[in-house]
Parts: sequence; structure tokens; C-alpha cells
Amino acid sequence: MTIAFLGTGLMGAPMALNLVKAGFPVTVWNRSAGKTVALEEAGARVAETPAEAVGKADVVITMVSDGPAVGDLLFEQGTAEHMPTGATVIDMSSIRPEEARNHADRLSKMGISHIDAPVSGGTRGAEDGSLAIMVGGDDVTFDRVASLFEPMGRAILLGPSGSGQLAKLANQAIVAITIGAVAEATLLVREGGIDPACFRAVLKGGFADSVILQQHGARMQAGDFAPGGRSSFQLKDLENVLAECRAMGLSLPLTALQRDRFADLVTRLEGGDLDHSALFLELLERNNLSRSQ
Amino acid sequence: MTIAFLGTGLMGAPMALNLVKAGFPVTVWNRSAGKTVALEEAGARVAETPAEAVGKADVVITMVSDGPAVGDLLFEQGTAEHMPTGATVIDMSSIRPEEARNHADRLSKMGISHIDAPVSGGTRGAEDGSLAIMVGGDDVTFDRVASLFEPMGRAILLGPSGSGQLAKLANQAIVAITIGAVAEATLLVREGGIDPACFRAVLKGGFADSVILQQHGARMQAGDFAPGGRSSFQLKDLENVLAECRAMGLSLPLTALQRDRFADLVTRLEGGDLDHSALFLELLERNNLSRSQ
Repeated sequence: MTIAFLGTGLMGAPMALNLVKAGFPVTVWNRSAGKTVALEEAGARVAETPAEAVGKADVVITMVSDGPAVGDLLFEQGTAEHMPTGATVIDMSSIRPEEARNHADRLSKMGISHIDAPVSGGTRGAEDGSLAIMVGGDDVTFDRVASLFEPMGRAILLGPSGSGQLAKLANQAIVAITIGAVAEATLLVREGGIDPACFRAVLKGGFADSVILQQHGARMQAGDFAPGGRSSFQLKDLENVLAECRAMGLSLPLTALQRDRFADLVTRLEGGDLDHSALFLELLERNNLSRSQ
Repeated sequence: MTIAFLGTGLMGAPMALNLVKAGFPVTVWNRSAGKTVALEEAGARVAETPAEAVGKADVVITMVSDGPAVGDLLFEQGTAEHMPTGATVIDMSSIRPEEARNHADRLSKMGISHIDAPVSGGTRGAEDGSLAIMVGGDDVTFDRVASLFEPMGRAILLGPSGSGQLAKLANQAIVAITIGAVAEATLLVREGGIDPACFRAVLKGGFADSVILQQHGARMQAGDFAPGGRSSFQLKDLENVLAECRAMGLSLPLTALQRDRFADLVTRLEGGDLDHSALFLELLERNNLSRSQ
């Protein structure tokens, strides 16, 4: 399979690199050209334009910032028109489920298949090839491209178009709420005179343990909120979860509370560029407490 | 070290058994005698009364239901008076931090040391000897009895008297909130047509993964709410967290919301004897949805 990989940023670059290393013929394109140098050295072909990248591709992978960026790339810039009939678009960007379904419909009318395949696992997962890949689409298309996912992580087909994006939103809701749980536990033990590092150590491997307790709990204790996952992105994800809930007629009380608190962190406390573990700052502020004990 | 183990219920029995197997001389007592038969067969001595059990003990381990039960056993029933001077009480029950400090003070005046050492990990952790043991007390006492904990799990001294109980409360807050996060994600994907089992599978090992996602998420999907950890106990734990917060002047918004919802589950929805994953029923009811899809 000949691959065009559009969008080689923080996540896309290591994902594309793993495809190159696995022996797939990969043509890359990125809006800012500097990010394709290392890929070219590893053996990727670099295209000047998206249209050039996709001209002979069996599969076009898109990995850009959000739904409007995907729509602009595929349709406004005319990239889809340059794809061979019978090509498949795998959109690995995180966008809204209804945007994914809309893209799938529009591409289908052009004779192009589409699956949504957003990921979880961060830059480390992208580099290690250990991403969780949440796939929506039809099983014939999934089976045809499934071998592509292997160098990038573990892919599971969850349902029809948009299902991957819905699962990603549910994933993000769990992350946002668990960060809140870890913040409350960290504050409680800290104010009670317990070293939060000892607290995390004794809980390790137990019922309350999680990657978020160990990693984000340590960031909260250290007051180190360099991203990682930005609070502004976490807020966008929660807004998308709640938009989906409104469309589905669902009420999710913890998600709604966390949306309000991340909005407060991003707007009033100006923490949008901080890691999402900075929700700890919102909790401190709510309690009139300072960052260090 | 000669051990008296008071309270050999669901948790206490396998913990005492691991001490016997490790070669410690153990005398057991339980309010209902039937629960000591297997321990006697394994080599434990069985006492008729708590006073008889503790008469020659270097260490007295208590594992009963709550703070008042511990106080009754130690003081109202006069058990502490029968302990040798210089003995150590290790209270592994889950009680309030201020109750633990009160017990430590009263015992100290009788020449008896006290550490609080509540556990997390459930009956499986008790059987495997893999409990997380959260210890409060002074380091001299902890060091003297530390070898006792090894057959039961991993013990870490967290701070002065009551610190173990405070850590246990923080542990329980994380569990209650994470159950809520998993309930919302499970409902969102289910209503979007995704099999929650596939959702749990794709998230396995990732950022949003946890023991609670895998175990309690499966219970929510199956509608199997046989306990496990009862909702009524979860509510008691959350009440204790919030009582501690009031005493410390802390506001924990997710914990407070979960307390209200578990109270609703226990009282209005009569779910007190169901597993705490039955919070999913509260979420369904809130959304006017039925148990099965």
C-alpha cells in the first residue's frame, strides 16, 4: 500500500516514521516544511503540496488539529479531488463524530472510503508505536488497511463512521474527571501532612491507581504544568463531549462539572497553555491555598 | 512476635492466614466463632474472648467494621486492659482519622503503642498478600512491627497517627469519582452504538485505563451489581471524607457531588447493598434510560 501522510506535527511525525521503518512507501506533507526533514532522511518522499502527496496514494492519512482543519485540507484545498478513485482516507485527527460522518459522506460521493481513527497515548505512544487507535467505519475498509495500524499501535474497529471519534471523546471525559479525582486526593493528603509521593507509592498497583495518578499527581505535587496535554485542548474536548451529549439527549454530571472548571482555568485563571493537570491550580484557588504547602 | 488477630471476617481471615503461613504465632478471635475454623486448621490458636486472645500478645491486630466497633472492642469491652504493657495495637480497620488519633491517645496513657494501617485491595489482595497498607504512627513503632506486614502486602509509613486513615479516605475518594467517570464513558459509548467491551479493550494500557475501567466497567455493562464493595460503604467513606474536609476547611467539588449521588443511590434508589459500580443505575435513572440497551 502506498501511503500519503498529511500533517507531520508532534504526533504525526513519529507515527509516519514508524510506517517508514515498517517498510511502507510513504509520501509526507506538512504545512510547515521544516517538520519533514527527519522523515526524508529516514526514507520518506516529501511532497510540496497535499495534492502532489495524494496523487498516487492507496491510503491518505490525515493528522491535523481539529475538524475544520481536516475539512479545509480535504475539501476547501481540493486535496480529495486529487486522490485516485478507490483510495481510502484514514483520519487520525481528533474531531467531532458528526464532522467525521460528514467527511465520510462527502468522500463516499467521490468514490473514496473513509475511516476515523483517532488515537490516545501522546507523543510517547506515537514514538513507541503503542497508541490506542479507536476506529470507526465499515469492516471491509478496516480489514483492507488494518496492517497499516500495526507499526503505530493497537487498532480496534468500534462501529460505523464516527465511532472512533465518539470513543475518543469518552476517553477524554475519563481523563478529565480522573485528573479531578487525583487533584482532590493530592490536596487532601497534602493538607493532612502526608507526602503525596508516598501516597502515590502506597497506592501503586491498587484499586485507585492509574497512569494519571502517577504522572499527573507528580506534576501537581511539583507544580510543574509544562504541557503535555494543554488545558485549552482538554476544554475543547469536554465542549465536544457535551455537544455530542446534547445531540444524543444525555446528561453526564461529572463531565459537565469538569467542563465548567476547565473553562474557569482557561479563561479566568489564564491557564490554557498549561498542562491539564493544572486543574490542581483551580482547586487550590477554590480553597484559597497557595501552590506550595 | 506473638500476634493476636481480632476480627477474622472477609478481609481479616485471609490476612491472618497469611501471618500463620509466614510462621508467626497467631491467636485469633472473632465475634462469630464459625469464621475461625479454617484458621485453627492452619495452625492458629483460637481464643474464646478478646481478653484471652491479647493476654500474651506483643502485637494486637484489629480488623473490624468501623471506628465505633474498634472503640467498643478496645475500651468498652476492656480488651486494652488485658494487653501487656509495651504491646502494640495495629488497627487495620478503616475508620476516621480523628477516631484513630483518639484511640492512639487513650492507648498511649495505658502504655500501649498504636498505629493505624488500613488497607486497599479487597478480598483478592488479602488472599494474595498484595494489599496496599497505609500506615500512620511513629517510625520507631512502625520499624518494630514492619516485618509483620510483609506477608499481607506493601506497607508505607505516611505520617503521624491518623495518616493511614486519611490516605485511605483519599483512596476512596479516587475510587468513587473514577467509578463515576467510567459510568459516564460507558453510557456515552453504549448510547452511541459502541460495544463497551470493545471500548475497554482499545483503552487497555492507555492514559484513561484503570482497574476500575476494566472491572467496574464490565459490571456496568453486564448489569451485575453483586458486591464487591457495597454502595452503602462507599457512601459512608465519602461522608467521612467530607467530615474530614469540613474539619480541615477544604472544598472538594467532585467528592461532594459523588457523595450526593451515592446518597441518592442508597436511599431513594434503595441500592445500598449493591456494588458501588451501581452508580451506573443512578446515571441511567437521571437520563430516563433502562438497564439494558
